[in-house]
Amino acid sequence: MNGDEMRARVAGARVGRLATVTSDGRPHVVPCCFALDGDTICSAVDAKPKSTLALRRLDNLRSNPAVALLVDHYDDQEWSRLWWVRVDGRGRVVDEGEERDAALTVLGAKYPQYREHPPPGPVILVEHLEWRAWP
Amino acid sequence: MNGDEMRARVAGARVGRLATVTSDGRPHVVPCCFALDGDTICSAVDAKPKSTLALRRLDNLRSNPAVALLVDHYDDQEWSRLWWVRVDGRGRVVDEGEERDAALTVLGAKYPQYREHPPPGPVILVEHLEWRAWP
Repeated sequence: MNGDEMRARVAGARVGRLATVTSDGRPHVVPCCFALDGDTICSAVDAKPKSTLALRRLDNLRSNPAVALLVDHYDDQEWSRLWWVRVDGRGRVVDEGEERDAALTVLGAKYPQYREHPPPGPVILVEHLEWRAWP
Repeated sequence: MNGDEMRARVAGARVGRLATVTSDGRPHVVPCCFALDGDTICSAVDAKPKSTLALRRLDNLRSNPAVALLVDHYDDQEWSRLWWVRVDGRGRVVDEGEERDAALTVLGAKYPQYREHPPPGPVILVEHLEWRAWP
């Protein structure tokens, strides 16, 4: 899979799985909606900012910015059709301001749900992307 | 979601996403087939043992046994139907012997592909499971 193909599959995916590392070195992974904006991956936190579940991934990023976003396809009948693309990068939490507004515009262009109900919390921006794929 | 419901959803899932942590503290995540056997999650390494991609998650576990396995449901049209279950545990790599054989039997009962083509590599056993779910 070449670079353009990896980008196309990630850009087209409706859901990814976002992995981070807790401050005590354990893995954390959640499903997430996201958008690819040039060389940045944007993701919003859907839940209220004070929710424990929402805070975990934000806390993780503040102590360790390393992020892995996985996009994959599973086909239970035909394992020869399986593929995945993983993007490793560095994430940061943006609580407010122009960068957050720009990310919400990009997310809104991809997901009508975000246009109807703009997420109230911070956004995550993942940069310095490294791309890997299988097969 | 109560404990029985979490177990049922994880047991019934055909694919999960397995997150580990690299020796330098970065997150790693791959899609994986798995089976729930009592209080143990079993997973096989499909690729040849010497493959770099296959070795990464095994190397991770040998340096840091913390594992998170995510099972989730995404519905692009109806976000009110989304759910996930995450199982945190400690993983170990079993290269050969009765434990490996037993895990392959459990995996074969769930996936016909494993009965037809038994995976040649080690298996991963995840124990000391802690269950979390949303919503």
